[in-house]
Amino acid sequence: MITRPKVVKANEVDILPVENARNTWIRVLISTSEAPTYAMRLFEMDIDGHIDAHSHPWEHEIFVLEGRVRIRVENDIYDLDPYTAIYIPPNKIHEYWNIGNTKAKFLCIIPVKPTLIE
Amino acid sequence: MITRPKVVKANEVDILPVENARNTWIRVLISTSEAPTYAMRLFEMDIDGHIDAHSHPWEHEIFVLEGRVRIRVENDIYDLDPYTAIYIPPNKIHEYWNIGNTKAKFLCIIPVKPTLIE
Repeated sequence: MITRPKVVKANEVDILPVENARNTWIRVLISTSEAPTYAMRLFEMDIDGHIDAHSHPWEHEIFVLEGRVRIRVENDIYDLDPYTAIYIPPNKIHEYWNIGNTKAKFLCIIPVKPTLIE
Repeated sequence: MITRPKVVKANEVDILPVENARNTWIRVLISTSEAPTYAMRLFEMDIDGHIDAHSHPWEHEIFVLEGRVRIRVENDIYDLDPYTAIYIPPNKIHEYWNIGNTKAKFLCIIPVKPTLIE
């Protein structure tokens, strides 16, 4: 865990392909090993970008920065524009598409540890 | 705590003045009572906006969306442009200024509970 301030410019962070996805990329701005409670990641989806359906025992808090993102959570579809946030609870199946005609970018915050929901 | 997805458009959320600040505003996108682990807030600073120096036993993860923000953490000054993130550890004195010639906007993520750092 880091104990000093950390400043990070997104375009200076390594960009890596997202697993189980098509033409989608991640930059880890503040990682789960650096942060005490939650990590900040920037996702970039090309025009045909897609992230396969998956679920895990932790939540997402997402904020759309650019473009237009479709997110399915279980049986519900949400089409999100910039300056829109979504909370996705733990253990819900979720899937993503870039449905715009530009690159889409969003922040996705995750907890450092799995989230126990009573 | 909410157990369903929540979608929120920033401009549809109440905008409230920030305490101990000048011409600075907050929109709570995902609150500490809604989220299990961390909350997402959007701050807006007018051209002369300022948040007084303060500290608390939890960290910040900040992402600048628009404008130019100066943040002091203890004795260090950071001037931040859009697509720049900063991690501010718990219990560090921090202070903010809008140093640009436009409104500044940034996301600030906080934990739901104070963060215990060993």
